[in-house]
Amino acid sequence: MSGEDAPAQQQNAVDQKQETKPTEEPKSEQPKTEPAPAGAAEAAATPAAPAEKVPEEETFSYRALVLTGYGGYDKVKLQVKKGKPALKSGEVLVRVKACGLNFADLMARQGLYDRLPSPPVTPGMECSGVVEAVGEEVTDRKVGDKVMVLNRFGLWQEVAVVPASHTFLIPEGMSFEEAAALPVNYITAYMMLFDFGNLRPNQSVLVHAAAGGVGIAATQLCQTVKDVTVFGTASASKHETISQGGVTHTIDYRTKDYVEEVRKISPKGLDIILDPLGGSDTHKAYNLLKPMGKLITYGAANMLAGQRKNLLAVAKNWYHQFSIHTLSLIQGNKSVCGFHLGYLDGETELIAQAMSTVLDLHKQGKIKPRIDSTWHLEQVGDAMRKMQERNNIGKVILTTEPMPEEEKKEEAKKEDKKEDKKKEEKKKDDKKKDDGKKEEKKDEKKKEEAKKEEKKEEKKEEEKKEEPKKEEK
Amino acid sequence: MSGEDAPAQQQNAVDQKQETKPTEEPKSEQPKTEPAPAGAAEAAATPAAPAEKVPEEETFSYRALVLTGYGGYDKVKLQVKKGKPALKSGEVLVRVKACGLNFADLMARQGLYDRLPSPPVTPGMECSGVVEAVGEEVTDRKVGDKVMVLNRFGLWQEVAVVPASHTFLIPEGMSFEEAAALPVNYITAYMMLFDFGNLRPNQSVLVHAAAGGVGIAATQLCQTVKDVTVFGTASASKHETISQGGVTHTIDYRTKDYVEEVRKISPKGLDIILDPLGGSDTHKAYNLLKPMGKLITYGAANMLAGQRKNLLAVAKNWYHQFSIHTLSLIQGNKSVCGFHLGYLDGETELIAQAMSTVLDLHKQGKIKPRIDSTWHLEQVGDAMRKMQERNNIGKVILTTEPMPEEEKKEEAKKEDKKEDKKKEEKKKDDKKKDDGKKEEKKDEKKKEEAKKEEKKEEKKEEEKKEEPKKEEK
Repeated sequence: MSGEDAPAQQQNAVDQKQETKPTEEPKSEQPKTEPAPAGAAEAAATPAAPAEKVPEEETFSYRALVLTGYGGYDKVKLQVKKGKPALKSGEVLVRVKACGLNFADLMARQGLYDRLPSPPVTPGMECSGVVEAVGEEVTDRKVGDKVMVLNRFGLWQEVAVVPASHTFLIPEGMSFEEAAALPVNYITAYMMLFDFGNLRPNQSVLVHAAAGGVGIAATQLCQTVKDVTVFGTASASKHETISQGGVTHTIDYRTKDYVEEVRKISPKGLDIILDPLGGSDTHKAYNLLKPMGKLITYGAANMLAGQRKNLLAVAKNWYHQFSIHTLSLIQGNKSVCGFHLGYLDGETELIAQAMSTVLDLHKQGKIKPRIDSTWHLEQVGDAMRKMQERNNIGKVILTTEPMPEEEKKEEAKKEDKKEDKKKEEKKKDDKKKDDGKKEEKKDEKKKEEAKKEEKKEEKKEEEKKEEPKKEEK
Repeated sequence: MSGEDAPAQQQNAVDQKQETKPTEEPKSEQPKTEPAPAGAAEAAATPAAPAEKVPEEETFSYRALVLTGYGGYDKVKLQVKKGKPALKSGEVLVRVKACGLNFADLMARQGLYDRLPSPPVTPGMECSGVVEAVGEEVTDRKVGDKVMVLNRFGLWQEVAVVPASHTFLIPEGMSFEEAAALPVNYITAYMMLFDFGNLRPNQSVLVHAAAGGVGIAATQLCQTVKDVTVFGTASASKHETISQGGVTHTIDYRTKDYVEEVRKISPKGLDIILDPLGGSDTHKAYNLLKPMGKLITYGAANMLAGQRKNLLAVAKNWYHQFSIHTLSLIQGNKSVCGFHLGYLDGETELIAQAMSTVLDLHKQGKIKPRIDSTWHLEQVGDAMRKMQERNNIGKVILTTEPMPEEEKKEEAKKEDKKEDKKKEEKKKDDKKKDDGKKEEKKDEKKKEEAKKEEKKEEKKEEEKKEEPKKEEK
């Protein structure tokens, strides 16, 4: 349970900090015939390789989602890229089949996630696919391998180049969608519960957003330990599903105070609290810990209010950010941990160990990713909206499968309606702000600034839009 | 390794928060003939019970160390108490054989430990001895049981009354001295390493004060896990001993920067750091953690400078106290934990579990308390001095064995010299302060205040001394 078993794979690439280049418009100054990399002779036989004389580097094209600027759902555009990305030593080229959406992607779109380079850039931290070419010195991956991929960014596209050490073989019988749903959520939940949390029999765990990707993974992982009590928050409509998934006590955070609800059942508090919310919820979590309890904070979802960056929400989150003195920790016998997989991207060995254990549990049938819904690349906005509005139960997935023609037509109609929708949303956002005003008169000044800032940003974005939209669909 | 095995003992007294009353001069309004408590008929046969008619409650006397006021080593006095302490339900009376000294006792003497009630009070968090009487409803202890005891305070005396749930049977073959050396240090080291630390094979651990009680316990416990690298700080003269004890890399913190020394060997940092120092050393520790590393802080030894409370040292420690924001923890993937057994005194079950595992390891020969030196109750000042001046390797123990007459005479001679010594110490302290002045001109003002405060306190103590010293030896 504790990740002691060293993984069988990828020890050769520890600490290799290469990053996927988003490969915007690769230059065609490369040699006309691709040099055959050692041990990768099959690369030439890749299914995407054209048969004629025109160099593949030039005819090769693929679709990619690109974040064009910080803002709402429409900031992620589908573009077509030309030219085959070059492979460096230790890298593989993956033909992507499915991609996972994560909360960090939503934060990134609003400019709230510092692990994503500035736009334009292709987001995406996880995907599944097939190895289509391997670079020099790659010995443990070959063309045709089905893999899942973890990367700092750049995976929401049909073709991705990543270090081989960032890929993991998909086990027999796992679909591409499941494989795209697994890495971030399960490694996150596993490392939080079993490394920082040191989860043991008879303990109690609070899982916020228990119907979300990490929530479901954490609940399943809690089931692998004897007599663990899981408290899970979710809106009431999701309670039946999460109960079936293993949540012992469901709490509707929208209508009830979760602290009170937990205290009713576990007056002394909890052993482990997973906190994706941040802000004042981290304070609550800390106070809800038993002696020897562990608070593991792994996000700041409270910063996300509306589809565009809400400076007020951000400021509030910073203002309420939890800060702790060691003497308080000593007197409480408590532990406060922070986790984010995005900041672990150099730790290939640690991640490989966790992945190895997670895949083992999958093999034993103890965990299984739950897919909420699958969307075409064209629908990425709707996919993000579903997740951000907390309407999902399980993982939201993007597929690179081409969209059927009739669906495309439907989508086009939707596009027309989007302008109206946008206006509506703006109204909604404004209404929310008005409601907020009533509640928080103190923050009046900050809000004014936030609005100004927002308008400025919108203006900037409008200007950017005026730039030539070459290749944009 | 992870304390999953439930202990066999004392589940019946969980959360029983009774505390040992220091039993200052118990009133003799108790019934003349002690009511025989259920299941404790043997109590009457206790070796200390006198044969004549005079009620035992009145003739019963015992020696006790009493902290008479905050200050230097001489504030802990040996006194004689009269009257047999009454037993409440669930309590046992222990004839104490040996007591352990802990850093918290030194802090307490200076008024820096809030778990000790105000003077006059008997200090002492751990001891070993023999059960001499049992109260009602005690089913798992009987007269004659050899036990070790953990209590919030009140154990530095010949007779102690404690909840039965605070006692643990001494295993066959363990001496009273070893038994008095074990509870605090080994439970502390065990819970830090295996609960918060989640220590696993191939990890690296920094143990400060590796020749101290917790340091030696932690080093031994690290040996129970495969391929753990232990970095241990101690002054050079102790290096051979701690190396033999299992420290992989010894560091002389007096002549070298331990951060640099660690980085030379482990450039990426460490998995676990046990920090008894506090202040700026906690900052260093945090920066020295690997991703997924755990910093466990369990004291503020940096506050102890000189034998009397040094307000400047205290202020500095507070000023430099480590405080951490959750977003930093997230970006670093780090854990900060606080531990102190003194604040866990209600957690009988947790402690019993840890003790059970520790005793199991002792049975397997994997751990063994190391006694530095044993002192008579009369010598408590010297015992404390040895520990505070870091001259010990292992545990400093007090024995309740009567002091041989010739030793007493020697001690008396020493007493005469003590006044001179005291003056000398005062000079030393003053010199230190002068040195400090040169280094820290900025703190001039604070220091002045500190001096004033010290003088005030000394005056107060002087006044207290003037009070009748009845029964004082």
